[in-house]
Amino acid sequence: MLVVQKFGGTSVGTIDRIRNVAKRVAETKSKGNDVVVVVSAMAGETNRLIDLAKAIVKEPDPRELDVLVSTGEQVSTALLSMTLVSMGLKARSLQNHQVRLVTDSTFANAHIKRIDAQKLTSVLKEGAIAIVAGFQGIDEQGNITTLGRGGSDTTAVAIAAAMKPHIKDGLVCEIYTDVDGVYTADPNIVSDARKLKQISYEEMFELASSGTKVLQTRSVLYGMKFGIPIHVRSSFNDTEGTMVTNETLDMESVVVTGISHDKNEAKITVLHVHDKPGIAHSIFAPLAEAEIVVDMIIQSASTEGHTDMSFTVPRGDYKRAIHILQDLVKQKKAAWVVGDEKIAKVSVVGVGMRTHSGVAAKMFKALASAGVNIQMISTSEIKISVVVNEKDMKKAVDVLHKEFELGNE
Amino acid sequence: MLVVQKFGGTSVGTIDRIRNVAKRVAETKSKGNDVVVVVSAMAGETNRLIDLAKAIVKEPDPRELDVLVSTGEQVSTALLSMTLVSMGLKARSLQNHQVRLVTDSTFANAHIKRIDAQKLTSVLKEGAIAIVAGFQGIDEQGNITTLGRGGSDTTAVAIAAAMKPHIKDGLVCEIYTDVDGVYTADPNIVSDARKLKQISYEEMFELASSGTKVLQTRSVLYGMKFGIPIHVRSSFNDTEGTMVTNETLDMESVVVTGISHDKNEAKITVLHVHDKPGIAHSIFAPLAEAEIVVDMIIQSASTEGHTDMSFTVPRGDYKRAIHILQDLVKQKKAAWVVGDEKIAKVSVVGVGMRTHSGVAAKMFKALASAGVNIQMISTSEIKISVVVNEKDMKKAVDVLHKEFELGNE
Repeated sequence: MLVVQKFGGTSVGTIDRIRNVAKRVAETKSKGNDVVVVVSAMAGETNRLIDLAKAIVKEPDPRELDVLVSTGEQVSTALLSMTLVSMGLKARSLQNHQVRLVTDSTFANAHIKRIDAQKLTSVLKEGAIAIVAGFQGIDEQGNITTLGRGGSDTTAVAIAAAMKPHIKDGLVCEIYTDVDGVYTADPNIVSDARKLKQISYEEMFELASSGTKVLQTRSVLYGMKFGIPIHVRSSFNDTEGTMVTNETLDMESVVVTGISHDKNEAKITVLHVHDKPGIAHSIFAPLAEAEIVVDMIIQSASTEGHTDMSFTVPRGDYKRAIHILQDLVKQKKAAWVVGDEKIAKVSVVGVGMRTHSGVAAKMFKALASAGVNIQMISTSEIKISVVVNEKDMKKAVDVLHKEFELGNE
Repeated sequence: MLVVQKFGGTSVGTIDRIRNVAKRVAETKSKGNDVVVVVSAMAGETNRLIDLAKAIVKEPDPRELDVLVSTGEQVSTALLSMTLVSMGLKARSLQNHQVRLVTDSTFANAHIKRIDAQKLTSVLKEGAIAIVAGFQGIDEQGNITTLGRGGSDTTAVAIAAAMKPHIKDGLVCEIYTDVDGVYTADPNIVSDARKLKQISYEEMFELASSGTKVLQTRSVLYGMKFGIPIHVRSSFNDTEGTMVTNETLDMESVVVTGISHDKNEAKITVLHVHDKPGIAHSIFAPLAEAEIVVDMIIQSASTEGHTDMSFTVPRGDYKRAIHILQDLVKQKKAAWVVGDEKIAKVSVVGVGMRTHSGVAAKMFKALASAGVNIQMISTSEIKISVVVNEKDMKKAVDVLHKEFELGNE
């Protein structure tokens, strides 16, 4: 069996933790598995390197910033590999010019195009453990690129996907993190939150993209596309974690699988805009140009040719967005712009929603009975998100967790 | 004209110094030159990385140690390149998998086999400054290798050599360091030591290999082999330094060009060994096996079938060497082993020695008149080295500098 194991920055953050990771890798290997390990930079290292660059220039050249920060993972691969070698195992660190993990040329946020399974296969055939630098790649011209924060998850799943056609006896991608797995809600908020044994790719994707941080969203999409079983588990104990897999029939019987929350957004409302074609464009185009990602969008009903437009943006971009949108007021396209940084988004997710009606009604009723005021609502096929006042967030998550009977029995 | 500029760890040791280096590079470029820059790791960085490895395992796997330490130069290339870009210049950092600086597979001490001039040429053709990581390479299999301490000098000269066939209007390799150039003796020891305007490759090689630290010996050999003019100069001022070039006719009129000293050796004497064939092998083979480099070797005249053998080893290997040689005593091949760590080697170097006799006699007389006792002597075609007591070193260098009239007139 091929086991691809990914260890994040916290898991390799100190010499002792690297030793622990090595033990776990050795154990997996000793069970007769082929092992590919993907590592992140030691916790804090990426920020140290970025600070070094910013001490020189405020907006460093993106190509060179990738050259700089990618050294963080290279250090981790070497340290882990030499630890394994010192334990008498065969191990080989591999950078992305060696694995030939080829991406497009979007520095700092590159997308993987292909991976050379040949190189990895030959290392595994020698009986060696392959230690691959996560988060980074090379483009067609051989420039060093990086995949963006959390990119190591994607590296791991993409490597598993590239190796899949060459594997006869099964494979799994293990994502080691500092939590035990995926929970029905954040255990720090809900005391009886329950660890899920399994979850579908789609649910995982919705949870990850609405605030649950255990897995990077792009890696979930890769897993779904190539059918890679992803095992999310803790690097600090041996407990089984959560398997992210294809949807199974019995998953549908569960209406809601988990609840996520996100305090990282802020709400903006543009008031009294002329309700005519092109108005949405004139609001969102300048934000897109400033690379501000807009999430939930709500347009109120039009009255007398005017409407209000509300949406959420990342909290870090809030002030910049407000500033940009003042232009609309100056141009008399809107009356004024207001906003609120102290909001939270709470989402319920479950593939069962597809076949069960009334989930939204049940959700809104529960929130109302708890006295939580809903400011915005958005839905997808398997998710319902509401924006509430930040101070109501914990109450909202709690009451929904109870309402949908997600806790430990 | 192509200017290859090499900046060592001290020259890029801080953000401010990197800015200074960038200014100098920009100035060279602004004069219409093509510029290739070779950088070392920031001062202290290589040791930091080695310490990290040694915290895990005493003798780290050599392949992985090279993967680890080579990140130091990568960081420097990125920081310098982004500085230049922020100044409005075109610059491109290049690692060795990009330049294709191919070496053999001797990790930690690899030798350069070839360099792909194509890649550098195309970067220069774009009008960009190429910033190359010194000290490192890749082997034929794409493994990361390093050239050993001081290897960045070699990288710079080797790059100049590789580019030479593609250059029409001349080239120079500038080695920036923390001294002004090559002196007739160490200015810290001899107050009227004089900076040399030029020096031949052979003299530079002899000086470098007998203790003068401004230039790495292997880089001098490269320069000699490919006829690359090497300009040794300070990164802290604009003073012209020393040109290392082919021997010119007028160089021969100067008998002695410079005096070097080396406190980094220790003397070992194996006493009363049977003077029979194979005895030298039984002494030096176990040292070679332990990778201890033996320098000067003196065998005393044989008396009654026995002889004494003296030689020098690097001071850091002294204790290990003594320990290894105790075996000879146990095997009754020698009576005993004695040694002295407190020695110094003082050498006079000059191509003029070839055509002038009496240099040795003059040297010994001068030392005798100063009361300096000579413990060992060795000579090459253009160098005479003596081992003296460490406490006599400064006196020896001083008197020889005066005797051969090397000071400022």
